[in-house]
Amino acid sequence: MNFAIPPLDTALVAALQQKIDNKTKPLGALGQLERLALQIGQLQKTLTPSLDRPHLLVFAGDHGAAKAGVSAYPQDVTWQMVENFLAGGAAINVFARQSGMQLTIVDAGVAHDFGPRDGLREGLREGLIHAKIAPGTRNYLAEPAMSFAERDAALAKGAELGRQLAAQGCKVLGFGEMGIGNTASASLITHFLTGTPLADCIGRGTGLDDAGLARKRDLLAQAVERAALPADADADALRVLAEFGGFEIAMLAGAMLGAAERGVLLLIDGFIVTSALLVAARIAPEIRDYCVFCHRSAEPGHLAQLQTLKAEALIDLGLRLGEGTGAALAWPLVRAAAAFLNEMASFESAGVSEKV
Amino acid sequence: MNFAIPPLDTALVAALQQKIDNKTKPLGALGQLERLALQIGQLQKTLTPSLDRPHLLVFAGDHGAAKAGVSAYPQDVTWQMVENFLAGGAAINVFARQSGMQLTIVDAGVAHDFGPRDGLREGLREGLIHAKIAPGTRNYLAEPAMSFAERDAALAKGAELGRQLAAQGCKVLGFGEMGIGNTASASLITHFLTGTPLADCIGRGTGLDDAGLARKRDLLAQAVERAALPADADADALRVLAEFGGFEIAMLAGAMLGAAERGVLLLIDGFIVTSALLVAARIAPEIRDYCVFCHRSAEPGHLAQLQTLKAEALIDLGLRLGEGTGAALAWPLVRAAAAFLNEMASFESAGVSEKV
Repeated sequence: MNFAIPPLDTALVAALQQKIDNKTKPLGALGQLERLALQIGQLQKTLTPSLDRPHLLVFAGDHGAAKAGVSAYPQDVTWQMVENFLAGGAAINVFARQSGMQLTIVDAGVAHDFGPRDGLREGLREGLIHAKIAPGTRNYLAEPAMSFAERDAALAKGAELGRQLAAQGCKVLGFGEMGIGNTASASLITHFLTGTPLADCIGRGTGLDDAGLARKRDLLAQAVERAALPADADADALRVLAEFGGFEIAMLAGAMLGAAERGVLLLIDGFIVTSALLVAARIAPEIRDYCVFCHRSAEPGHLAQLQTLKAEALIDLGLRLGEGTGAALAWPLVRAAAAFLNEMASFESAGVSEKV
Repeated sequence: MNFAIPPLDTALVAALQQKIDNKTKPLGALGQLERLALQIGQLQKTLTPSLDRPHLLVFAGDHGAAKAGVSAYPQDVTWQMVENFLAGGAAINVFARQSGMQLTIVDAGVAHDFGPRDGLREGLREGLIHAKIAPGTRNYLAEPAMSFAERDAALAKGAELGRQLAAQGCKVLGFGEMGIGNTASASLITHFLTGTPLADCIGRGTGLDDAGLARKRDLLAQAVERAALPADADADALRVLAEFGGFEIAMLAGAMLGAAERGVLLLIDGFIVTSALLVAARIAPEIRDYCVFCHRSAEPGHLAQLQTLKAEALIDLGLRLGEGTGAALAWPLVRAAAAFLNEMASFESAGVSEKV
């Protein structure tokens, strides 16, 4: 997999910082929004960035290991929630509508046949893209979750989607996911790609009780033992992805890479989406600077991910829902960062005295 | 000053919590937004709250002590920034426009004559309300900042504005301020009304350097010595307000009280607005539960305020600008809390299986 993601251009840093500093406010008074404005300007190589056609892609997939008991919910909830997305009734629908993001669901590998649906189309409120690699992954407790060919197909399909949206004028792309069992998958990926002890990467997911959490820890330890892979700096990210990944996680990584190649700003949701970014960042480390880390997930492994990526989350509301809800909720703040850069008056233009 | 603010109704708590828990998401997965939804439902005594006509009131006033050197900016910046607000060029204009809040500026006591302007009127983007108590307070280093009569006039005018907006159908009211020197005023109020040592209540305001900060600390210590008032539980909030308050702070407190009386949700900005709330909460403690604490200010005294009010801020972006920017930026999150309560499907209506 080759992706040509240019490092952020530093040529405009001084001019952008000067523009930010001349706005009618004390130096640095807009805190993290000022750093965001600088990042967005650098990414788009302009002093007047635009964040047109904000879009959310929610990738759904099933996990062979789900039936072994790594989740509190039955596997059918994956397809049922996809239907809920398509009917407009889930949290991500409410938040995407409110914040003016177009929402598209991608069937990356759900164990269900959705039949013919509307896909990616101008103005469509909730479309479904058929991109099923297989009806769920295999059980990584017994064997690799997917073949290398399946993994590569998922990455390629994701990249194609990311590039396609960029070609349609999308300047900012949020990412979400749905898949019963996918916090377990994200925990395993996080363990291998950050070197954090496995137990510190495992949380309650959608709401396991103490016994369920203990069981999840036991099962994931077995999965790690079976695969017998190196972790941390020596980890082979693509191998880890094939061993434990969901199709939705692989396709997420591909979509991030494809969109970043085209200069799209990436809104990274919580624990599972960030596990996909860990993979993407091993393939093309430059992608890190195309990302806004939208929220601090309540899943314990998210902290290890953010530390590895040297990232700070924009909001921390104790969310642990996924679906891209953190990205949709943070989007108005990201938009505000670009807006102040574009719309605020300068001391000179407003006739306001500067610091004495 | 008497304000009849009823305590939050607990009759609907069980029904609201059940509605929240039946939404298609794991229990508690929306974190702080779930607590917000519960609060809003309780406040409006309904399972289907509405947050119509969101409005921001930005109160401006000058401070006699400003000329003594408690701020890094010249006093003229207060009226210059009011002109900037009225021209649409400040940060609060950008954020209010973006998040769909109507913005009204209130001249509570600016040392400047603005002449005739449009005021509070349907659909007006940026109006100015003339409510000047006097052209700036007196210098609290030498004498009380305002008379009791001026203080009461400011509180009464604020309360009238809060009630007037409620009568026009405003269900959510954000608060902001502008006034060179008003972080110093807020520091003094915070010291007396929280019992926190003065030094821990004083920060750099709009950007003092080390020498400026040391000077501000010295000056405020002198002001405390001159006034010789009891602090903490024994403090007389109305007396403290008259000694050190800006007219904008007094009018803010009145507006909060008047709006809360009418069941309006209050969006509390940062350090200065919260100092006004400290006063309001001494007058009517029930007001606390009508508030959303929008952001964690970078001013050190804000922490003492939040602790005293047993409050947690919704966002923490390192902002230290005032103007109500924290309230405008947090508003989409507050709206999202009401929206998920109103619009999300339940497990039953969406046909999604519950936890096994």
